[in-house]
Amino acid sequence: MAQFINDKEKLVTDAIDGIINVSGGRLARLDGYPHIKVVVRADWDKTKVALVSGGGSGHEPSHAGFVGKGMLTAAVCGDIFASPSVDAVLAGILAVTGPAGCLLIVKNYTGDRLNFGLAAERARTFGLKVSMVIVDDDIALPDLHQPRGLAGTLLVHKIAGAVADNGDTLDQVTEAANRVIAGVKSIGMSLSTCTIPGSPKEDRIPAGKAELGLGIHGEAGVEQVEFSTAKNAISQIVDKLNSHMSNESHVVLLNNLGGVTEIEMSVLAKELFQSKIASQLRFVIGPASMMTSLDMHGFSITVYPLQDSDEILLKQNCEPAAWKGCFEVINNDVVALPDGLTPILPIPSKHPETAAFLTQCCEVFIASEADLNTLDAKSGDGDTGTTLSRASRALIDSLDRLPLADNTQLFRAIGSELSQTMGGSSGVLLAIFFAAVGDAASSGLPMIAAMQAGLDRMSQVGGAKVGDRTMIDALQPALDELEGGIATAAKAARKGADHTANITEAKAGRATYLSKAQLQGHNDPGAEAVARLFEHLAKILPENSN
Amino acid sequence: MAQFINDKEKLVTDAIDGIINVSGGRLARLDGYPHIKVVVRADWDKTKVALVSGGGSGHEPSHAGFVGKGMLTAAVCGDIFASPSVDAVLAGILAVTGPAGCLLIVKNYTGDRLNFGLAAERARTFGLKVSMVIVDDDIALPDLHQPRGLAGTLLVHKIAGAVADNGDTLDQVTEAANRVIAGVKSIGMSLSTCTIPGSPKEDRIPAGKAELGLGIHGEAGVEQVEFSTAKNAISQIVDKLNSHMSNESHVVLLNNLGGVTEIEMSVLAKELFQSKIASQLRFVIGPASMMTSLDMHGFSITVYPLQDSDEILLKQNCEPAAWKGCFEVINNDVVALPDGLTPILPIPSKHPETAAFLTQCCEVFIASEADLNTLDAKSGDGDTGTTLSRASRALIDSLDRLPLADNTQLFRAIGSELSQTMGGSSGVLLAIFFAAVGDAASSGLPMIAAMQAGLDRMSQVGGAKVGDRTMIDALQPALDELEGGIATAAKAARKGADHTANITEAKAGRATYLSKAQLQGHNDPGAEAVARLFEHLAKILPENSN
Repeated sequence: MAQFINDKEKLVTDAIDGIINVSGGRLARLDGYPHIKVVVRADWDKTKVALVSGGGSGHEPSHAGFVGKGMLTAAVCGDIFASPSVDAVLAGILAVTGPAGCLLIVKNYTGDRLNFGLAAERARTFGLKVSMVIVDDDIALPDLHQPRGLAGTLLVHKIAGAVADNGDTLDQVTEAANRVIAGVKSIGMSLSTCTIPGSPKEDRIPAGKAELGLGIHGEAGVEQVEFSTAKNAISQIVDKLNSHMSNESHVVLLNNLGGVTEIEMSVLAKELFQSKIASQLRFVIGPASMMTSLDMHGFSITVYPLQDSDEILLKQNCEPAAWKGCFEVINNDVVALPDGLTPILPIPSKHPETAAFLTQCCEVFIASEADLNTLDAKSGDGDTGTTLSRASRALIDSLDRLPLADNTQLFRAIGSELSQTMGGSSGVLLAIFFAAVGDAASSGLPMIAAMQAGLDRMSQVGGAKVGDRTMIDALQPALDELEGGIATAAKAARKGADHTANITEAKAGRATYLSKAQLQGHNDPGAEAVARLFEHLAKILPENSN
Repeated sequence: MAQFINDKEKLVTDAIDGIINVSGGRLARLDGYPHIKVVVRADWDKTKVALVSGGGSGHEPSHAGFVGKGMLTAAVCGDIFASPSVDAVLAGILAVTGPAGCLLIVKNYTGDRLNFGLAAERARTFGLKVSMVIVDDDIALPDLHQPRGLAGTLLVHKIAGAVADNGDTLDQVTEAANRVIAGVKSIGMSLSTCTIPGSPKEDRIPAGKAELGLGIHGEAGVEQVEFSTAKNAISQIVDKLNSHMSNESHVVLLNNLGGVTEIEMSVLAKELFQSKIASQLRFVIGPASMMTSLDMHGFSITVYPLQDSDEILLKQNCEPAAWKGCFEVINNDVVALPDGLTPILPIPSKHPETAAFLTQCCEVFIASEADLNTLDAKSGDGDTGTTLSRASRALIDSLDRLPLADNTQLFRAIGSELSQTMGGSSGVLLAIFFAAVGDAASSGLPMIAAMQAGLDRMSQVGGAKVGDRTMIDALQPALDELEGGIATAAKAARKGADHTANITEAKAGRATYLSKAQLQGHNDPGAEAVARLFEHLAKILPENSN
């Protein structure tokens, strides 16, 4: 699978360079490429306890994204899913550790334990105070001897980071970290594996299944379970978490494993806060990509029972770009709909001539249904005729409730009817046209000028003008000539409509997506409809009508 | 493709509920489900100009994620890639518009223009001041009549939002929005199409190709181009942008279209700031998912020349969760490596007996290469023998530079050699073992106790203990019996190693991933190596050696 990378060997250093470019000067890196890939706080003065974490890359924004005041002091980055070397960790420790000492936060993977462990050993020979904690928040297997470190690590970074930022001692910071580690529990679920750069994607999970109890390195989950809905996915995850949870208030971290869309994550959040553990979840972090597994289409949920000063420490201000805050969970906050959504219905009135006129206009469109559909099939989705005839029939059916005797109200009412029965763009455009015509007419403009005002507003909102291969190509010339009588106007409309067959570059509507050859020789169906209406009116109205 | 959703019909309302759950009380919604899906600021008091945007869903975090003080006042959400209805837009306008009026920020799509346009019309009949701007930042086609609205919309939200938050008038806010719209340019590139919920993913882009000039609704890009690397992708994008850019300072927005991993986005950022427009890019927003197209594996770049007070407005504090800030672009900030990374080499010294002893130990492992590989193939990746024999040969080759006559230094030096030549977990573990043995011996502990101290440290860092199916299962009993002589110790090591064949639940290393049946009957290769070493020593050393 193609990816936006360069040389696979330079992937991590390229990414670190990019991270620093956009950090606004908050981050720097150690001069040790390619073997030493360490991101550090640019503003660090070694006056407090330093926090160093890291591990394999592929978990972005972990760990470099969490470097900054209030969280990590340095992130030591390995290659994709590979522990950084002892030298790299040692470089990180030596670069940031002052007299207050340094806490190493290590996820429970053998490579990380060993490399951070040996680096700690070597750093201690320089007389530095170094302590190390191992995060093992995975609950995928109840009796796992060495539970993995997952997204719960972020809570260790945040809480221990806040304690360190408050100026506490290494022992106090280490104690806070161990307090979080003792309480934090995580489990993940995924619908796909991840794509390791340069490797094909493994297709391990069959349709209808999800993997439950995942690590963050593409290894298989501990079981494949039935997958149906987001609700069911959360329910299965919650069942696992529930047995590890007390009745205390918890903070929950909803982590995107990398490939879940934001809309899905929001749906998962909704289901989480309607699940059976919802009442125990007082604060939430995310949903966000925090500890990912490249592009894995999965998520993990981490819970942690709040103790002592955790609430304050979690909410304490911090700078890392990837930390999006910790918020109180709230129930759905619903505001009443405003007044004014229901339009005031016009008072119906009778006017047989107007009713007959409108009916005749409508019948033009009904009779043209098949022709207009055929034309539309050349340049659109073939439904202009159906749309117009359906709306025409609906308008005929609505005559009884229209204010036929009140011209001003009538235009607005026709617009309102069309916007409800036609649907789509054309319905709205015609509603705007008729509403604006009504407005203009009621303000005293003569009918032709009022219709021109309606056309202007429709053009402004719709964005089309003459030459764009729309109904305007017939309507504008017809209005331009209407002072000269309906027959002249009809001829102008026909000329305009026929001209659209030569406009091979549509500038509005679906026809914009078609080629010249596809458009050449076919009238625009909207313009054709307008022309047919005027041609019909020229037959039935007295010659000097306008 | 499976997704974490429930009913497709309820997708957007489910997601909105989740967004509000995690908003910390900053967001609320209007009571109009399912047709009216409007997210509003919970703290809004109508004292300033309101900003309303929206459009189809599927672009998360747009638009609800940008609702908050300093940006949008309300987001009107349609279904996936479908414009919201006129009623929904009207509800949003009426809910948030006070005497100061309301600006509608609309992306240039026909449906959105029409529905927002008609809603504006209807809102004006209530006497509300409503203005509307159309964002059309797409430069995919140079002569496009109706350029699409893309991620540049975010800059309109931010700058107009800041102006509104400063208490300026509707005219001033509208003017600021139009100023941004006039200057902002965007173009996107993708390696895949997006997955519309409930539909199969279209496989339109062949291997080795990318689409350039994309919209955000899954429609095809205007051209398919060769794709090779991130550098080349940026170069093609930059070529398109460059012709629209002045020599002024610009802000650049690097937008993830939804499916790009964070590590890729960072690589793209690095290439962007090394591209030929780099010197014109003064501020950066992102990389981040801001205006997505569901899970599309693509990105877009937006540039905007800074004018007037734009810098202040862009950096002005704002609350929306999805706004991650605007930062000065910085060049790679590199900090010199700390001192202390190069270990001080021990002074070599000669001691023929020690050299001969070490050589014999190494030859045990070299002779066992094939056997140990075979054993490891049953429970790991089949390379224990090769790893040990390679390290043994390297140790023999290094004898000349070891401090053979200085026991304390010798242990550290052996550890250091092994950590460099063995690689992987075992090298580090043995380095920790030998370093700690050396430490303990130098502090005056007798040799057996010193070795026990080394084993303890190795166990603490590595996390394994007796019974976990590791080399410790042979080493610990051997040390326990070593006071009784080497022959007794060798028997204990053999017994311990053979016992590992019955330990069918590994608790450390790769063997933890295997089943009981796979492990039963095969000695752990590390334990077997230790046993063979002690057995050989029992043959060559005097009986009472220890």
